[in-house]
Amino acid sequence: MSVGAMEKAATGVLLNPVEDGFVSDAALAPAFFEWLCRMGDSAIILGHRVSEWCGHAPALEEDIAMANTALDLIGHTQMWLGLAGEVEGKGRDADALAYLRDALQFRNLLLCELPNGDMGVTLMRQFLFDARHHAMLVWLTGSASPRVAEIAAKAVKEASYHLERSSDLVVRLGDGTEESHRRMQAALDQLWPYIDEMFMDDAVDDAMAAAGIAPRPSALRREWEGTLREVLAEATLDMPGPAGFAQKGGNIGRHTEHLGYILAEMQFLQRAYPGASW
Amino acid sequence: MSVGAMEKAATGVLLNPVEDGFVSDAALAPAFFEWLCRMGDSAIILGHRVSEWCGHAPALEEDIAMANTALDLIGHTQMWLGLAGEVEGKGRDADALAYLRDALQFRNLLLCELPNGDMGVTLMRQFLFDARHHAMLVWLTGSASPRVAEIAAKAVKEASYHLERSSDLVVRLGDGTEESHRRMQAALDQLWPYIDEMFMDDAVDDAMAAAGIAPRPSALRREWEGTLREVLAEATLDMPGPAGFAQKGGNIGRHTEHLGYILAEMQFLQRAYPGASW
Repeated sequence: MSVGAMEKAATGVLLNPVEDGFVSDAALAPAFFEWLCRMGDSAIILGHRVSEWCGHAPALEEDIAMANTALDLIGHTQMWLGLAGEVEGKGRDADALAYLRDALQFRNLLLCELPNGDMGVTLMRQFLFDARHHAMLVWLTGSASPRVAEIAAKAVKEASYHLERSSDLVVRLGDGTEESHRRMQAALDQLWPYIDEMFMDDAVDDAMAAAGIAPRPSALRREWEGTLREVLAEATLDMPGPAGFAQKGGNIGRHTEHLGYILAEMQFLQRAYPGASW
Repeated sequence: MSVGAMEKAATGVLLNPVEDGFVSDAALAPAFFEWLCRMGDSAIILGHRVSEWCGHAPALEEDIAMANTALDLIGHTQMWLGLAGEVEGKGRDADALAYLRDALQFRNLLLCELPNGDMGVTLMRQFLFDARHHAMLVWLTGSASPRVAEIAAKAVKEASYHLERSSDLVVRLGDGTEESHRRMQAALDQLWPYIDEMFMDDAVDDAMAAAGIAPRPSALRREWEGTLREVLAEATLDMPGPAGFAQKGGNIGRHTEHLGYILAEMQFLQRAYPGASW
């Protein structure tokens, strides 16, 4: 089949636009690469942000839980960007893509690069992301691309736990003390303008959807909203109205000023010691 | 003369330990290089820290004044590290030394790399540094090394203004409102363990002092304490007692965790785009 043929091509055999069945694969490769970077970049940037809490969280249990979440996400990155490198076929592996691209080449959701703020902002950001991430991965387990389905099958187990944990904490803190409630509501209101971006479609998504590889992000919104409505109600938090405007552009490399600082720190070792390994 | 000969050697003529007059220069070069890095590194690291306020200071006047201070310090760095590169004679210029060394090779005072904290910490750190910096540069205008004396003559004019400004602000805020007084005293107490390092001597300093190039840092303490006593008295701030312990090691490359983050950010462009120029 078409997608399988492309992946076969990507893992060694040169794409040959003349041969039957390879034409559409060759045409699809750039979009597939972009889409894989979107998956991998959101995971590594959020993973890096969450890792910043390591050793600083208010309770040991949370510190370890967040470090674990960060590790899971960085593990997903390795799979998504590894496949991205294969599809690109230019010899870049997951490390090269993660550590040697600059901000304009990053494709993560803006939500993932926002500063941690207090625990309220960190946990609310995680919940908003997890609910979408989980819905996406569940869909992807049935992807027409066996490689994507395989990665999703591994990742969805962890994402399912992430969503369970962040939902639980949103409920506990939203329906907690007066201060924790106030902070969680403030966090939700503050992050709200970054929500619409998670459900916007573009030509890359159209190509993925047409090939049966991935859903259009907009198709995930109904399920995401259902999760949100349920958790926020239990957390006694108010869903904000329409944001009026949406912060967007992450998936085409237009980022907030925060991403550059993340990359400076995250990429230091590979930049200062190119090719370093251990 | 000896130092002049070395500098002549450093600017092109190879050091020749066999020829008369060059022996001591060759022996002195490593210490001279170290000492020049200490001067340059303290200037660039403090300059970078101060530059972090750019666009964030509580008043435009202060914002511009601090950006100017940062620029002055980075200008000093260019002179100190430029000469360091000549003395080293390995083809590294000021840019290479500033942007392509890692934390273990940096020789700045720990005081310079401490986080900005609030304006109180930033201004108190500046004053504590300026008072020593100014005394050092005044001495250096009479250095046995004409190149050092020349740099010091340029830098001391700016350092004199820095000291005037930071003294003035320490007085205004120390003898200001109850809150500003409290913050300035807290800043002084917090920074106090980093003071002793500014006046410690080692073999590098002994070599510089013996050659008449620079004073032993310990020789600057009396003058620094005089300035401090006078300004703190007017600022109604209490000079802390002996710190009991001293944070030290910056001048041999043992740094706080903060330096790595500074370098990650400061060196990003040269690390990501080696050799970039404009």
